[in-house]
Amino acid sequence: MASKKLMNSVAGCADDTLAGLVACNPNLQLLQGHRVALRSDLDSLKGRVALLSGGGSGHEPAHAGFIGKGMLTGVIAGAVFTSPAVGSILAAIRAVAQAGTAGALLIVKNYTGDRLNFGLAREQARAEGIPVEMVVVGDDCAFTAVKKTGRRGLCGVVLIHKMAGALAEAGVGLKEITERVSVAAKAMGTLGVSLSSCSVPGSRPTFELADDEVELGLGIHGEAGVRRMKMASADEIVKLMLDHMTNASNVSHVSVQAGSSVVLVVNNLGGLSVLELGIMADAAVRSLEGRGVKVARALVGTFMSALEMPGLSLTLLLVDESLLKLIDAETTASAWPNVPRVSVTGRKRTRAAPSQPSEAPDATVGGLTSKRMALVLERVCTTLLDLEEYLNALDRVAGDGDCGTTHSRAARAIQEWLREGPPPASPAKLLSQLSLLLLEKMGGSSGALYGLFLTAAAQPLKANTDLPAWSAAMDAGLEAMKKYGKAAPGDRTMLDSLWAAGQELQALRNPQANLFHILTKAVESAEAAAQATKNMTAGAGRASYISSMKLDQPDPGAVATAAILRAILEVLQNLEGM
Amino acid sequence: MASKKLMNSVAGCADDTLAGLVACNPNLQLLQGHRVALRSDLDSLKGRVALLSGGGSGHEPAHAGFIGKGMLTGVIAGAVFTSPAVGSILAAIRAVAQAGTAGALLIVKNYTGDRLNFGLAREQARAEGIPVEMVVVGDDCAFTAVKKTGRRGLCGVVLIHKMAGALAEAGVGLKEITERVSVAAKAMGTLGVSLSSCSVPGSRPTFELADDEVELGLGIHGEAGVRRMKMASADEIVKLMLDHMTNASNVSHVSVQAGSSVVLVVNNLGGLSVLELGIMADAAVRSLEGRGVKVARALVGTFMSALEMPGLSLTLLLVDESLLKLIDAETTASAWPNVPRVSVTGRKRTRAAPSQPSEAPDATVGGLTSKRMALVLERVCTTLLDLEEYLNALDRVAGDGDCGTTHSRAARAIQEWLREGPPPASPAKLLSQLSLLLLEKMGGSSGALYGLFLTAAAQPLKANTDLPAWSAAMDAGLEAMKKYGKAAPGDRTMLDSLWAAGQELQALRNPQANLFHILTKAVESAEAAAQATKNMTAGAGRASYISSMKLDQPDPGAVATAAILRAILEVLQNLEGM
Repeated sequence: MASKKLMNSVAGCADDTLAGLVACNPNLQLLQGHRVALRSDLDSLKGRVALLSGGGSGHEPAHAGFIGKGMLTGVIAGAVFTSPAVGSILAAIRAVAQAGTAGALLIVKNYTGDRLNFGLAREQARAEGIPVEMVVVGDDCAFTAVKKTGRRGLCGVVLIHKMAGALAEAGVGLKEITERVSVAAKAMGTLGVSLSSCSVPGSRPTFELADDEVELGLGIHGEAGVRRMKMASADEIVKLMLDHMTNASNVSHVSVQAGSSVVLVVNNLGGLSVLELGIMADAAVRSLEGRGVKVARALVGTFMSALEMPGLSLTLLLVDESLLKLIDAETTASAWPNVPRVSVTGRKRTRAAPSQPSEAPDATVGGLTSKRMALVLERVCTTLLDLEEYLNALDRVAGDGDCGTTHSRAARAIQEWLREGPPPASPAKLLSQLSLLLLEKMGGSSGALYGLFLTAAAQPLKANTDLPAWSAAMDAGLEAMKKYGKAAPGDRTMLDSLWAAGQELQALRNPQANLFHILTKAVESAEAAAQATKNMTAGAGRASYISSMKLDQPDPGAVATAAILRAILEVLQNLEGM
Repeated sequence: MASKKLMNSVAGCADDTLAGLVACNPNLQLLQGHRVALRSDLDSLKGRVALLSGGGSGHEPAHAGFIGKGMLTGVIAGAVFTSPAVGSILAAIRAVAQAGTAGALLIVKNYTGDRLNFGLAREQARAEGIPVEMVVVGDDCAFTAVKKTGRRGLCGVVLIHKMAGALAEAGVGLKEITERVSVAAKAMGTLGVSLSSCSVPGSRPTFELADDEVELGLGIHGEAGVRRMKMASADEIVKLMLDHMTNASNVSHVSVQAGSSVVLVVNNLGGLSVLELGIMADAAVRSLEGRGVKVARALVGTFMSALEMPGLSLTLLLVDESLLKLIDAETTASAWPNVPRVSVTGRKRTRAAPSQPSEAPDATVGGLTSKRMALVLERVCTTLLDLEEYLNALDRVAGDGDCGTTHSRAARAIQEWLREGPPPASPAKLLSQLSLLLLEKMGGSSGALYGLFLTAAAQPLKANTDLPAWSAAMDAGLEAMKKYGKAAPGDRTMLDSLWAAGQELQALRNPQANLFHILTKAVESAEAAAQATKNMTAGAGRASYISSMKLDQPDPGAVATAAILRAILEVLQNLEGM
């Protein structure tokens, strides 16, 4: 069975994709009656050399993505993996000639069909009096034995497009451009690797690979490579590729050695994740630099694909300053990336971490307040540890059954922290330090939510620690939880009991406030709210995904926070009584 | 079994890909000890607003590819599909603050983990006195029912990066940037479709689809979508997506309607071929324009991926002139494409085909020479038709067995052409017309090679038609075949017999040349060369792929050309004798 493809028809896919590129890129136009795309500002190129390239479709964004000021003038596309028609190549040559350009250079990948069809169009155009040159680019490093037809054309051709484009834009003549890029084309090499093959529209995949194999030295038409090997690490595969590409005993190698300066292209063959592309790019830069090679520029992206092949190719182009200027020149081509004009090798890749804000030492640590804080926290911890099984059981109804475990983890972390020394006496510092501790040790959404609550609550307590400040702290904490957690009271979360308590704590702002009276009401209100979550539909958090289910049990987070509040109240009452 | 991936380790893959991006992009630096990338020119941003974004890895090139002048100041990356650590977010905020920026805007995709972790870091940074704002972006159009947590953040966030970046670069303040991009974030929508799922490193694919199904309304973490449907055409799928995205009864829709002006993003979710991406982009532009929507800009590429997911998302952002200016503003971000600052809708997408060179009418058509030419061609045709089976048999030894069929197809095409009227008497015109005919009707490499030979051979015959000119024509034809076909004499191809004849035809350049004596020697030499291909190893063409095999039979192409030469000689001798 043919592989799935997003298309309208097998027959029309090359036309449709070119139409899409032209539709989305107002700098391009189609040539009527042909599968040809040209710069829409063709008539502004009078007296300059036109650059035409192309080949089979299926290599997108090549070649039409490289049309633009400073790169190609136009491209001629064939059907998928098929050379373009001679008549269309000739039409493109005539179109650029009739626009007043000073002749055309055909940039052709070394494949028999492309050589013949572009060659024939060239001969016909010359017979009509149009000056046309042709450069055949072969950059494949795969084959170790001499091939009479020379190296295949792969991703390296894109660098030729770029260099020729910069020269044409600078007004250089046809002969000189042809000579200069012909020399550059010999100074580059490409090698591909893939996890699997691709499938031509309407067909099955072109070859099969086992689950633990990779294919090395592939072409760009889904043909199998020169070597199949067992899966290895990114570093090992890159090393093997670069060894093969630069090995002087390989007739198709590129003469890159210690001291060489190169442009590196890390090209997605189509279906590789960009995550993996980045990993391989990292390995390639490290491996090249380890060989003493200077990476002058590195281009990472999709340049010359083979449909959806999940692999990549590495291209190395030996460069001097003059070639680098051509690579760096401006272009409007849509598929050419923003490449910084700075050497990759030899610059600092890390920045020192920022300094942490320094805190004044807390003179009250270890004092009476500090000891009272420790007592409160101890009781909170034992309360949560006692509730572990009950909270887990509640959580199994609507969540993943670990609410008790998560809270116990937090409790043990606090206990350990208390054993290391007395807590700060300053409420703001205490809450801030607890926030960081829970964030790190409790983990998950609960850790982040407690962390948020405590961080926000700490702020109003920096200036004052009177009763109104504690109410403000509660409000700030609730506000942060609501804001970032996107939960509201009534959503069946830990916010429900905290919110209820917070409402009662408003009374602390009254100058005549009775602390224990208010605290007691707040805890009772929190406990009632926790029980009331029984009848609520989950509106946020994990339980919201089974929103229509009748849950019949209170929310474990709400139960936990109510229990924490009760523990705090009880210790404070005991301390008051002492 | 876990899917194959090019990586060094599951645990290190997020670090390695970020390191690769930073290594290849000298505009970026890593923040020591954190999975954070920052602009390397951070210290030049004094007094400007810093823009920080990020989220789980696996979305490359997001988010680090969008760091640069005019876009993000830095990003914080988590493990694959996991929110980044609060400590790293805080470190990034501190780093930009210590570099002297005027506060930071956190641009966050709407996911609980991201909201909580970025929110917590924000609260902590504010507690340290750093001005930090946060915008939570949700652009998902998938869900038709109200979700309390709001729309998920998808590819649209990249447009927010761009607009915020342009504002920050222009020196706009923190509050104003926050307000403006918050408004813009509400005016966009995104919907995804995929042919299959992706697999997190170390794991199996996240869901399974049948061979004839596509998944609609996916997130970007490999989670299944809102609807599974039967495979359909690109046009049908795009119509369905745009209908869903813009349907006012869908609570998560974007209010795009006739008369609206939009920026369209066609985003590869990772593993879709760029061919298909172009086809879908074409369908999207046509469908939007068919609805009366003006596509102001269209961005096609990989912006926000979900590892190697073979799918795409469409994003629509409602724009006015002021937003469009922000989209159009310059940026050095490596993953932002070259987008022409011209409206997609409303400009001419095709250019008229070039005119064909007009030829002067040939007054000698139908004359004696014309009739003789016809007789020669007739004999060539019957000769080739007689040889069909023999040539096919020879070709079955080393090729695909169709050499006779191909030559017969050419012969019948010539016969039909002759029935339409007498051929041109001018040899140059005759060869040129035959070239076009064979190219079109014979097809394949043979058609192109004969076409090349005839086109090149026609050129020396334009000025003269004497005997030396015919030798020059033969040489020009042979030269073109060698050049574009990359075959040499001795490679077991049709060139062998033509080459042998060409060597004898050199004698025509002698003023005392005896035509029939030389022609006879040339034909005999060609026939001998054809037979001699028996002992040759194939060096070019299809037979070269079984190069080490002993073939024992002559090359069918060489036999065919020798037979053509003999046919020509015999007719000329008959005519001479009349």
